[in-house]
Amino acid sequence: MNRNQLVTQIRLKQNYLCVGLDPDPKKIPSFLGKYPDPVFEFNKRIIDATKDHCVAYKLNTAFYEVSGAKGWETLEKTAAYIPETHFRIADAKRGDIGNTSGLYARAFFETLSFDAVTVSPYMGEDSIRPFLEYTDRWTIVLGLTSNEGASDFELQKNGNIPLYEAVLRKTSQWGTAENMMFVIGATRPGSFTEIRALLPDHFFLVPGVGAQGGSLNEISEKGMNGDCGLLVNASRAVIFAGNDEDFAEKSAEVAAGYASEMKSCLKKMHPPGRMHRNPD
Amino acid sequence: MNRNQLVTQIRLKQNYLCVGLDPDPKKIPSFLGKYPDPVFEFNKRIIDATKDHCVAYKLNTAFYEVSGAKGWETLEKTAAYIPETHFRIADAKRGDIGNTSGLYARAFFETLSFDAVTVSPYMGEDSIRPFLEYTDRWTIVLGLTSNEGASDFELQKNGNIPLYEAVLRKTSQWGTAENMMFVIGATRPGSFTEIRALLPDHFFLVPGVGAQGGSLNEISEKGMNGDCGLLVNASRAVIFAGNDEDFAEKSAEVAAGYASEMKSCLKKMHPPGRMHRNPD
Repeated sequence: MNRNQLVTQIRLKQNYLCVGLDPDPKKIPSFLGKYPDPVFEFNKRIIDATKDHCVAYKLNTAFYEVSGAKGWETLEKTAAYIPETHFRIADAKRGDIGNTSGLYARAFFETLSFDAVTVSPYMGEDSIRPFLEYTDRWTIVLGLTSNEGASDFELQKNGNIPLYEAVLRKTSQWGTAENMMFVIGATRPGSFTEIRALLPDHFFLVPGVGAQGGSLNEISEKGMNGDCGLLVNASRAVIFAGNDEDFAEKSAEVAAGYASEMKSCLKKMHPPGRMHRNPD
Repeated sequence: MNRNQLVTQIRLKQNYLCVGLDPDPKKIPSFLGKYPDPVFEFNKRIIDATKDHCVAYKLNTAFYEVSGAKGWETLEKTAAYIPETHFRIADAKRGDIGNTSGLYARAFFETLSFDAVTVSPYMGEDSIRPFLEYTDRWTIVLGLTSNEGASDFELQKNGNIPLYEAVLRKTSQWGTAENMMFVIGATRPGSFTEIRALLPDHFFLVPGVGAQGGSLNEISEKGMNGDCGLLVNASRAVIFAGNDEDFAEKSAEVAAGYASEMKSCLKKMHPPGRMHRNPD
């Protein structure tokens, strides 16, 4: 899915919600245990129930790897089940020496058909380039993450520049706003204004709303650009909204709640006709 | 495998070689195509042929994920096939927010039975802690990697301290020399003296000898400590030494060559009876 297609979906649905399919097998409703692949059944129902309220799905590989090969199969099936109208993100945070990163890129862009994969910048350019060689896909670089540990290195200043800013400045030169995004956590909304000033055109993938407590309104106000430029992720708050037979409906309600808040934010920031890329 | 057991193996075999089982499916000998799982057959033969010449095996997850669920099955089977006498490393370079890193730890330490997993430090303490909670396993933190891209961030100085040094200083406080190691690439042997001075007790996992060109002699001289303190990895140079029916014997020859060089290094650095932990 290219940028124009993504922006079209955001415009059509009037939201920029990404649902995080992070189903810890220990936490899914117990009645699903009767299905051959309970986690896939869980994901399928969440997708069916939420797809009208979101534009993207993000699968964090940890929640699949914990079940070994069987979990990886669930990951494959889930990725294939996501409708083509939705942007598919593998939240894998990979990164290795060049030839190895090339294999990861093949894994997520060819073996699996993700539109995007998250990567860690620590090892530098040759660890990220192989992903960028897939010009019709997206490489999402960790910038400023939503967790407490961000203060250990990401926020450490070198001169006046924190590491995450050096990462944004340097890595953004390796690709374009058509094939690169950045992870910017919602838990530090104060940083959004300057990050948006630094990277006016790029999309940001924003985790940390919901269970982690970030404010949707504030990050939307400070982070939006003319193409919206935000994909805001909610995982646990959506997928674990219920725990009974009606869990998927509960998820849909929560997703619809986010979507409606986002609609208001879009209206405020983009009065009708003001979004840049008009596909009509 | 705890530190004492690892040091015992190094002492018994008189080498500190780690063989990297990184079998790009496109590069393994074509005659193996007739087996139901050619990559597993490849690994099995490499393990059988090299196990007397090494103390550890390292599986880089990229080379398995590229084949999807099937590849992950090969990873599982290979990990299970490695003899208990050998230290088993998942070179996964994972790292995520706390609860997610916990799932990765479960994946590699419980679902799979690796002794150690490599992790990326970018996201800070809560991304690494969940691995360290497994006190009988090892967390191997990326320090100074062997690739060119290390100069983009790892070698960038903050004051007088490059990022990788800040990482070594800070992360080493979160664990002990009994449950933490660091990745220090062989391609920058000049740094080994000061890194060893900074962390006198820890083991270093050293990639970059072989295909990447690092000098075994130099890093051994500068990096060894009283318990040896080094696991030197060779992947492509060993596993792709041959490409015909006798590929495993060729691998064994190359591994034996490294092992013999290491024996000399150990002798030079540790005259008989001088290695600290004598298990007898």
